[in-house]
This record gives sequence, C-alpha cells and structure tokens, in this order.
Amino acid sequence: MTTMEYTSALVSSADVDGTNVYGNDGDKVGHIDHVMIDKKSGKVAYAVMHFGGFLGLGETQHPVPWDALKYDTSKEGYVTGITQDQLERAPTRDTNWQHDRDWEQRVHDHYAMPYYWI
Amino acid sequence: MTTMEYTSALVSSADVDGTNVYGNDGDKVGHIDHVMIDKKSGKVAYAVMHFGGFLGLGETQHPVPWDALKYDTSKEGYVTGITQDQLERAPTRDTNWQHDRDWEQRVHDHYAMPYYWI
Repeated sequence: MTTMEYTSALVSSADVDGTNVYGNDGDKVGHIDHVMIDKKSGKVAYAVMHFGGFLGLGETQHPVPWDALKYDTSKEGYVTGITQDQLERAPTRDTNWQHDRDWEQRVHDHYAMPYYWI
Repeated sequence: MTTMEYTSALVSSADVDGTNVYGNDGDKVGHIDHVMIDKKSGKVAYAVMHFGGFLGLGETQHPVPWDALKYDTSKEGYVTGITQDQLERAPTRDTNWQHDRDWEQRVHDHYAMPYYWI
C-alpha cells in the first residue's frame, strides 16, 4: 500500500446516477442509470448503464460490474475498458437476473472482473 | 459462517433512496434521502437520512454509517439501533464533512461502528 492523499473519497448515489461513462479512447459510451447495491456487504455491485444509440443492442440498459469503472476527475465521469465488442457478446439475462448467481458468474467472467460476493 | 440461502441480494440505489428507517421499537424514525459511496472501495459508506419532524435538530439531514442499518423484508424498510439520544449527540459537521476524515472517525466512534475505510 502506498500512502494516498485524502481527497474527496465519497460520492452521492444521486450524483452517480446520470454520470457519463467514457471508453479508453475518450469517447462517451453512455451514462449510468442507477447502481445496484449488494445488501449483505453494502458494496456497489453493478452500474446499470444506459447506452443511448451507441450500440445496436435490443436492450438499451446493461449491468456492468462496478469494478470495471474508474472515476476520472478531469472528465467528471467514469472511464471503462469495456469495449463495444464485449458488450455485444455479454451473456444475455432475463428479468430475474438479480436472483441469478449463474448469470452473475458468467458476466463477471466475461468482463474478467473479480466476483464481488467473495 | 453459516450457509445462507441465495435470495435477492441486490437492491437498486433508486429503491434505497426514499426507503423508510425504523427504530428497534418499530417506530419510523425517518427515511433515506440518498447514500454516499466510497469511490475507492465501491462500498456504501453512509445513508444520509432525513428526519422529518422527529428530532428537534437544527438540520433535517444526517449521515449515519451504512452498517448501522439492516434491511427488514417484513417492514420493507431498514431498521437501526441508533437512538434519538445518539442522533442528538452526534458530532457536528460542516459542509466539508465529505473531506474530513477526523469527523468520519468521530462519527463512527460515536455510533460504535467499524471504520469502512479499513
């Protein structure tokens, strides 16, 4: 652990919702509609992102693991390494996805993100 | 650790905001206005609660450590052991509280809650 300067470490859920998300190339890929919180640990598990016209997907909202987003103060938004290709190939989900650990495992594997529940 | 049945483990930030909070005696003490998320860990750090007329405090919003709240499905709301007396004696904060680790330590000590940043 290196010593980190203590700056603003807290962000309001009200400010997260609606915040833009950019790709590593700097282009805007969408915005966060809302986040999903793991009741047990209190950790944010997913950002449910809205992709407005960016993708040719049948759905316009898509949950991505929270750890795939990093806040960039210079952009006043989040940056993600998730690519359009990854999004298009993401495991499909049904309306019951919040109760579906199998889907959660598949989607975390897909994005190569650690499981938030371990 | 006991084995837990996997039920709905995720809750939307949009659903948390506005949810009622009850005391251990079952009386409603207020509702959650919004939550504050620790950017570094992605963990919810505080519920900023709204106490509508319940307390004779000069301010109507007050951040309480997230771990002091527990969801109760039968109430469809959160239950807290925090008492009115504790709230009235809580360390005062200035507008800069989100940058004030000293205040954060004092408020966690006050409510006997573990520091979320450790």
